[in-house]
Amino acid sequence: MQADTEAVLARLRRIEGQVRGLQRMVEEDAYCIDVLTQISAASRALQAVALQLLDAHLEHCVRNAIDHGGPEADAKIAEASAAIARLVKS
Amino acid sequence: MQADTEAVLARLRRIEGQVRGLQRMVEEDAYCIDVLTQISAASRALQAVALQLLDAHLEHCVRNAIDHGGPEADAKIAEASAAIARLVKS
Amino acid sequence: MQADTEAVLARLRRIEGQVRGLQRMVEEDAYCIDVLTQISAASRALQAVALQLLDAHLEHCVRNAIDHGGPEADAKIAEASAAIARLVKS
Amino acid sequence: MQADTEAVLARLRRIEGQVRGLQRMVEEDAYCIDVLTQISAASRALQAVALQLLDAHLEHCVRNAIDHGGPEADAKIAEASAAIARLVKS
Repeated sequence: MQADTEAVLARLRRIEGQVRGLQRMVEEDAYCIDVLTQISAASRALQAVALQLLDAHLEHCVRNAIDHGGPEADAKIAEASAAIARLVKS
Repeated sequence: MQADTEAVLARLRRIEGQVRGLQRMVEEDAYCIDVLTQISAASRALQAVALQLLDAHLEHCVRNAIDHGGPEADAKIAEASAAIARLVKS
Repeated sequence: MQADTEAVLARLRRIEGQVRGLQRMVEEDAYCIDVLTQISAASRALQAVALQLLDAHLEHCVRNAIDHGGPEADAKIAEASAAIARLVKS
Repeated sequence: MQADTEAVLARLRRIEGQVRGLQRMVEEDAYCIDVLTQISAASRALQAVALQLLDAHLEHCVRNAIDHGGPEADAKIAEASAAIARLVKS
């Protein structure tokens, strides 16, 4: 799990760098299309982090809740579904 | 489960009607922007069906696999994650 | 333009076939993940039609409106932007 | 145009703050679903910047190219279409 956390943090730091790079591009009046290309790249990178976290969430939290049974399992599945819906729509 | 199947089929029939309506619009040379608006509506409707199916899949198949334990559970979780990724990217 | 219309219609007919195929899969109780894979394919196909129509719209309608000048050009650009936003969010 | 640049920069700085907030959440082991909710918010914010830039690009660059006519106009329209496609797919 620790390794995963480090990997997620490394990705988020890279995305922070991409967003700072975007600010520089806008300040230096870069060509709109180049800025848009970089925004698409940052969006895809954010999406990849989300999918990695969701994957880990299903493998650990949802799985544990189902293993333990009870109403908690229903709640976890409903919560994961809602998060997936937000992701698909964003 | 039967009720769910009927609801999904009703939604898919409505989407089929939307796609046929799109063909009529294109044949009658409707205004591009109106066609695009209808395509966005059909896309959102397809997305809603996908989220409903995914929800049912987590609640039934993934849950059962985890309840039964063993390597099948890992396979089901990995498969659900891959389907979510395809959905997020489509 | 006629050739474009035929190409768009052919794509829409294929999508209608995909949506009918989805109904058959659901009726025959196909595996959820396989249904989801087909929904992702149909969504991408709809998206491709939308991008083709938007492209034609920019090349013809928006361009003509700008060529003719006046307030119509502003309206067309605003309308295209709104359609792009709906597409990006759907 | 200057006002637009300031508005875009303000949005990008806010997004940078959101991405830094995400790193803190991950470091402090926040609940996955809360992290995912924040990622969806940052994604939507990036998308909004992209739509604002695209809008400005159509209103200024594409319009000017069409006003001046010639092959440059075709190139600008093709380039904008490609940027829209990347955005829709990201």
